[in-house]
Amino acid sequence: MTNGIFITFEGPDGAGKTTILSMISEKFNHAVITREPGGIDIAEQIRKVILAKENTAMDPRTEALLYAAARRQHLMERVKPALEAGKMVLCDRFVDSSLAYQGFARGLGIDEVWTINQFAIEQMMPDLTIYFDIEPEAGLLRISKNKGREINRLDLENLNFHQKVREGYHILLERFPERIVKIDASGTLEEVYKKTLQIIETKLAEKSL
Amino acid sequence: MTNGIFITFEGPDGAGKTTILSMISEKFNHAVITREPGGIDIAEQIRKVILAKENTAMDPRTEALLYAAARRQHLMERVKPALEAGKMVLCDRFVDSSLAYQGFARGLGIDEVWTINQFAIEQMMPDLTIYFDIEPEAGLLRISKNKGREINRLDLENLNFHQKVREGYHILLERFPERIVKIDASGTLEEVYKKTLQIIETKLAEKSL
Repeated sequence: MTNGIFITFEGPDGAGKTTILSMISEKFNHAVITREPGGIDIAEQIRKVILAKENTAMDPRTEALLYAAARRQHLMERVKPALEAGKMVLCDRFVDSSLAYQGFARGLGIDEVWTINQFAIEQMMPDLTIYFDIEPEAGLLRISKNKGREINRLDLENLNFHQKVREGYHILLERFPERIVKIDASGTLEEVYKKTLQIIETKLAEKSL
Repeated sequence: MTNGIFITFEGPDGAGKTTILSMISEKFNHAVITREPGGIDIAEQIRKVILAKENTAMDPRTEALLYAAARRQHLMERVKPALEAGKMVLCDRFVDSSLAYQGFARGLGIDEVWTINQFAIEQMMPDLTIYFDIEPEAGLLRISKNKGREINRLDLENLNFHQKVREGYHILLERFPERIVKIDASGTLEEVYKKTLQIIETKLAEKSL
């Protein structure tokens, strides 16, 4: 086992997790802050295939396998070496995103997506996952404010999908109660930051016991 | 279920399977002859990532997931539609190649590679798999003859790997006795062709009963 600590941040866009992560990173300035594909060349190449606009024929299972492949490479090249060097690794999104988005919301099945991700990550699960919970409507409102634009028809169509993503995360909370901690992300940035910091510090204290 | 019939050709390079497949395709001229990635754009993009010379850092599990992703896309875009149209599909290599090469010879584990491939292919397994069995030394000799070159040091180093590949295929023969038929590929092209044809015709007769 390693001396490092692996913490992932999860939740929908608009929950503020990326902002909080950057605030947290100032506090723990020796931590490795990352997100998939994390600048790992092979993972970036895979991501390019996933996101290419012309790839409209991509099957959802192809996509899930590609995400798992990119995850594997990022894990092996960035996360694992840092953990082995005893570092704290904070990662914006990890396996739970695939489970909530593709497994549950896209309907591939949480268990099935879990299976291919187990192959990808072997036993390297996060020590702690912080899930930023927010009503999809509130998250949407934040995104539209950040981008300085009105909520459009597409956003509203997406609301139903984001309801399902949230439902997916709630299933994961029940499945992994030891690992995932939920934070109410509807409060102010300062409130959410404080709670996040407290959860991480509690975990660090546990780990050093 | 479909009216089509899905047949895969397996074995090491040098067993002659690609030559036999092209002879068979002349006999069944309505059959769809394919091989992964089969010109499927998304699968070709994935293959490019797998084969890129600069990707020396690629983890074996990343590679296995990418092969499964490319397989899924080729299956959905080419194989499945053809089978649904009632066609015969002859495919040069399929899931057993991943099991023998990556699962067994590379040591990832047949069961583990099988798991991610089950996700990729769901229940769409071949009706028949013809495995062209040959001693690695004999296969190597054929390849070097075809390429008009001497056997080199690298080839000999590879012999040990190809022994393992063969061992992997033999394990699969035991595991899937109903589906995989072994052909001794050490005979003449004409002999191997005749045996192959006979096996396919027997399967077709069974299927039309």
